[in-house]
Amino acid sequence: MSHQATEPQVNAVVERVKEIGLKFELSRGEDRTLVGVIGSNAYAYREAFSHLPGIKEIIPITKPFKLASREFRSADTVVDVGGVKVGGTQDVVVMAGPCSVEGEEMLIETARHVAARGARMLRGGAFKPRTSPYSFQGLGEAGLKMLAMAREETGLRVVSEVVTPADVELCARYVDVLQVGTRNMQNYALLQEVGRVGKPVLLKRGMSSTVEEWLLAAEYVLSQGNRNVMLCERGIRTFEVATRFTLDLNVIPLARELTHLPMVVDPSQATGKWSLVRPMALAAVAAGAHGLLVEVHPHPDEALSDGAQSLDFAAFDRMMDDLHRMTSVLTQVAAK
Amino acid sequence: MSHQATEPQVNAVVERVKEIGLKFELSRGEDRTLVGVIGSNAYAYREAFSHLPGIKEIIPITKPFKLASREFRSADTVVDVGGVKVGGTQDVVVMAGPCSVEGEEMLIETARHVAARGARMLRGGAFKPRTSPYSFQGLGEAGLKMLAMAREETGLRVVSEVVTPADVELCARYVDVLQVGTRNMQNYALLQEVGRVGKPVLLKRGMSSTVEEWLLAAEYVLSQGNRNVMLCERGIRTFEVATRFTLDLNVIPLARELTHLPMVVDPSQATGKWSLVRPMALAAVAAGAHGLLVEVHPHPDEALSDGAQSLDFAAFDRMMDDLHRMTSVLTQVAAK
Amino acid sequence: MSHQATEPQVNAVVERVKEIGLKFELSRGEDRTLVGVIGSNAYAYREAFSHLPGIKEIIPITKPFKLASREFRSADTVVDVGGVKVGGTQDVVVMAGPCSVEGEEMLIETARHVAARGARMLRGGAFKPRTSPYSFQGLGEAGLKMLAMAREETGLRVVSEVVTPADVELCARYVDVLQVGTRNMQNYALLQEVGRVGKPVLLKRGMSSTVEEWLLAAEYVLSQGNRNVMLCERGIRTFEVATRFTLDLNVIPLARELTHLPMVVDPSQATGKWSLVRPMALAAVAAGAHGLLVEVHPHPDEALSDGAQSLDFAAFDRMMDDLHRMTSVLTQVAAK
Amino acid sequence: MSHQATEPQVNAVVERVKEIGLKFELSRGEDRTLVGVIGSNAYAYREAFSHLPGIKEIIPITKPFKLASREFRSADTVVDVGGVKVGGTQDVVVMAGPCSVEGEEMLIETARHVAARGARMLRGGAFKPRTSPYSFQGLGEAGLKMLAMAREETGLRVVSEVVTPADVELCARYVDVLQVGTRNMQNYALLQEVGRVGKPVLLKRGMSSTVEEWLLAAEYVLSQGNRNVMLCERGIRTFEVATRFTLDLNVIPLARELTHLPMVVDPSQATGKWSLVRPMALAAVAAGAHGLLVEVHPHPDEALSDGAQSLDFAAFDRMMDDLHRMTSVLTQVAAK
Repeated sequence: MSHQATEPQVNAVVERVKEIGLKFELSRGEDRTLVGVIGSNAYAYREAFSHLPGIKEIIPITKPFKLASREFRSADTVVDVGGVKVGGTQDVVVMAGPCSVEGEEMLIETARHVAARGARMLRGGAFKPRTSPYSFQGLGEAGLKMLAMAREETGLRVVSEVVTPADVELCARYVDVLQVGTRNMQNYALLQEVGRVGKPVLLKRGMSSTVEEWLLAAEYVLSQGNRNVMLCERGIRTFEVATRFTLDLNVIPLARELTHLPMVVDPSQATGKWSLVRPMALAAVAAGAHGLLVEVHPHPDEALSDGAQSLDFAAFDRMMDDLHRMTSVLTQVAAK
Repeated sequence: MSHQATEPQVNAVVERVKEIGLKFELSRGEDRTLVGVIGSNAYAYREAFSHLPGIKEIIPITKPFKLASREFRSADTVVDVGGVKVGGTQDVVVMAGPCSVEGEEMLIETARHVAARGARMLRGGAFKPRTSPYSFQGLGEAGLKMLAMAREETGLRVVSEVVTPADVELCARYVDVLQVGTRNMQNYALLQEVGRVGKPVLLKRGMSSTVEEWLLAAEYVLSQGNRNVMLCERGIRTFEVATRFTLDLNVIPLARELTHLPMVVDPSQATGKWSLVRPMALAAVAAGAHGLLVEVHPHPDEALSDGAQSLDFAAFDRMMDDLHRMTSVLTQVAAK
Repeated sequence: MSHQATEPQVNAVVERVKEIGLKFELSRGEDRTLVGVIGSNAYAYREAFSHLPGIKEIIPITKPFKLASREFRSADTVVDVGGVKVGGTQDVVVMAGPCSVEGEEMLIETARHVAARGARMLRGGAFKPRTSPYSFQGLGEAGLKMLAMAREETGLRVVSEVVTPADVELCARYVDVLQVGTRNMQNYALLQEVGRVGKPVLLKRGMSSTVEEWLLAAEYVLSQGNRNVMLCERGIRTFEVATRFTLDLNVIPLARELTHLPMVVDPSQATGKWSLVRPMALAAVAAGAHGLLVEVHPHPDEALSDGAQSLDFAAFDRMMDDLHRMTSVLTQVAAK
Repeated sequence: MSHQATEPQVNAVVERVKEIGLKFELSRGEDRTLVGVIGSNAYAYREAFSHLPGIKEIIPITKPFKLASREFRSADTVVDVGGVKVGGTQDVVVMAGPCSVEGEEMLIETARHVAARGARMLRGGAFKPRTSPYSFQGLGEAGLKMLAMAREETGLRVVSEVVTPADVELCARYVDVLQVGTRNMQNYALLQEVGRVGKPVLLKRGMSSTVEEWLLAAEYVLSQGNRNVMLCERGIRTFEVATRFTLDLNVIPLARELTHLPMVVDPSQATGKWSLVRPMALAAVAAGAHGLLVEVHPHPDEALSDGAQSLDFAAFDRMMDDLHRMTSVLTQVAAK
């Protein structure tokens, strides 16, 4: 719409979209409103709008992902997680905690430590998608309750994975961010359900998904009306087996060109080796990441899952120190 | 158990397993019964069985997958789909039909054609997991009804994909084989649900899953008590982009060494190009596949999905002719 | 050129090509001669030929590979290796022998055995490109002499790898086919040198090369005037580590659409496991391969390199039996 | 050897190594001398040394690469390129210039610009390994002469690729660093030749080589007596096609644990897109890289090769500004 478009003019456009039977999305920027018209051949109907007042121009979005694209929304999305802001020029947000919630004591101990060192969110799995049916599958709702308790104690926001549509409502009662894991990036029923529930979503990249497939997965969430999507690179599967996965940092500046959504990086999953986490966390931020997801455990050797890639408290502290030292420079650089 | 083990002796072993709190699986072969004891450290309890009569030996299963392993069951599993048998030395079973069910007429036309040429099952998607939320997602229950109708008409067994746990029961009412697609190979809630429902399952390999992860996914189904699992190789993701995926036929003889489950190959998804389907179908059978899953469409150019990889009737006929011509030789060879 | 084009007319076209400063390649078919004009913008000069008599039409070759393309030459190339013919509708040619030439006795023993069972060529490495500088690197010229001796004894043609341009002339004195290995597929100086020497070439696919890059590597040889190029698929590098490489059989029918050159498959390198060699050899032939390259060793357990993937004599015999049993059917099928 | 070991004692050990028929490498550190004994079963001879004086301990090097390993040499190697030092805690060295040397004027212009902005070396290809035989292959010796001239003008050290053993001596006359490209990482004859000539070597990682294969390639150079090897990560081949290659930064901290050799990163080749070069250069340095190899061209749109990934002068300046701004922090961090 043009700068001067009035509210009735915007409404008239929306009504015309509905008459035709297409979907729409309103995006109100500071000085301009955008009406996104969604449908596989929406652009073919452009003539139907040609005589409506207040329209500045009609532009086709050429990417297969629409709502996720920079063409649809040029300004960075900043996701607000109960006051903690992720995206745009905001400070890098560190989300830290154990791979899986193993008990109340270890969780609270970890939460207190990472909060004191500057983390803003607590991560921890209550529902764990494990490759083997015989591995520890998480504490379920009991784990969620512990996470909520840790939030009370520390003020940290809580991010935790949901693995099946039936659990979305349950998880949403306890956590601040619903994480969709790499194995579920193309579990479309799950994506639609987290889209409907409205909570912020952390969408991990499938371990062998292209950036286009990833943005289309985000589109499943966005098209349900949930605009609070954060993307998380966590390593892709390649021929290299010396590390657990290959962290694809190319994708950070690349995706930032293609989408307005915030980018998070998980160096723990991506490397599988704690000694690589600190340098890769720094590299991720230098490449333009808005947030980090890091596994921390009071006693990594005793962890029920993924101990080898968890930082102990001392290693976490060193990472945070280096991050802080780089902060002024990095935000200056990354923001450009 | 030894050859001479009596029923009470077997029961006594089972009772001891229950007392310890472990799970068990009975496998009764022609001349011997095997009691599989399942638990992450089950072998540590072997002393607790040392004085029970009728036990021949206690063997640890070293593979992470247990019920799926050749160690647990040395003879090939033959899955019986309403009289159509897949696995072992049975004839190669062809499952053919459109990528997605688009309408009654095209489905019946296709079903009649492929049945007349020797196919034993009809494939067709009613629920389609599509990369984009804006693509055709299938006809849902209406599609399932058409599949059931085509079965009535032709006697073909029906295989169709289920994409979320909530739909399993619905799908199971209409189809003979529940297909779990490549994007859902690690959707564990779905695997457990198809495990509980008891219908034969066709488990496609994740497009970037190792053979071990695939067999562990099968283990999720098997460990729910459903032993009728068929595995389906459908191409893996590699650097090569000249074909849609890379068909990994190495995995056929390899997996047949590791597991007793039947192996099916989908050359349509794996190549993405109809002209490659016939040679790759022949290659799959030569490598030892027990079944083929092939996309056939009366008019591939007009297909709503995956037209480029669908055979038209003439191309399907040619493939079946070549397959028949090779049959006597191939079954002779592959069976060894 | 048209059917009726005379020799002077063909010569006039060639002269014009030279005047412009472009290169050319004459391809004389049964009823028609083709003048290939090579240069990055050759098609721009088509006007310069418009008034010459005897030209039927001027067609741009759109593929980046020219001489290797089906557009340039529609009929299958049959490479003649001292009377053993590879390609087109010729019988599948088996090239068998040890990974590396370890000594005279083992080589002769192997050569006699495989020749008696129907192999037509003897493979064996005298120069071995090894990942570690501390591994056995081959016997060099001594090994070449043994290969030549084995040829005398058995009548088998000899194929062996050359690893550096300086050795090409030496190797060409002893062997019938110069093999370029997977690590050297983009060693362009080597490709040009084997192109100049004129002997038949077996060009293995780079372990992470696309089919287009492979055909462009062949183009390096062809453009030096050597038209006797055979391509050999030997497995590509993927995320799957259960086999040494992933045999990409999709590439056989695909490459046969794109090029007229014969296709060979090496199931030994591709699987790294002898028990998979027989089924994958059969699969390769079913997919349309013109030849097989197979590692055979009298005592695989004692091999200096690659014992795990070598067939012993009994396993080789079984593979040959199955191949023979399939032959009439397969040639009938594959030839279409 | 022990701290107090005398020169004659060291010599005695060396003599014993020679008697046995093994190779050796002397590594003299500040307070201790190490005698590396090389041979596939060298450790089996340890008894032969047990009575020699001055030996502190005999340690097996368990890695397949020996001279390249941290076990052999614990301190970082610093490669001295005519006074420009790469490795250890030295400043990050920027090597910049055009993909290929296209002419004297453009080369001098580029060299002057990058030198003024802080680059210490000039890169530029005179011999270009191109996928197609019909692409521009470089100016050859004429290009080398231009590079030498640019060195005279600017004081920059010169790094340029050598593609075949026969050219090594020629290249070594003109350049300061011999680059071995990704396609030649396993061209062992070339590695041995650059090992013999003694000039510093920049060894690019094969586009589908594991870190172990890469270090074994370095071992080929080192085992010829040339200790001045720098390793260069330049992107690996994966399923992701949105970028030209996938830059694997995991490998920087990983390789620094395994080897003492300096690590360089090439963000231009790795991304194929100039807009990603700056963020990935910063990320590489944050991950611990000792040097950067960056393509710069006065007019990228007119480049004969790889224009899309070349920085123009303005983009190069911005990268250098950001690098300088981060320097104090980064060296502090990376050095730890």
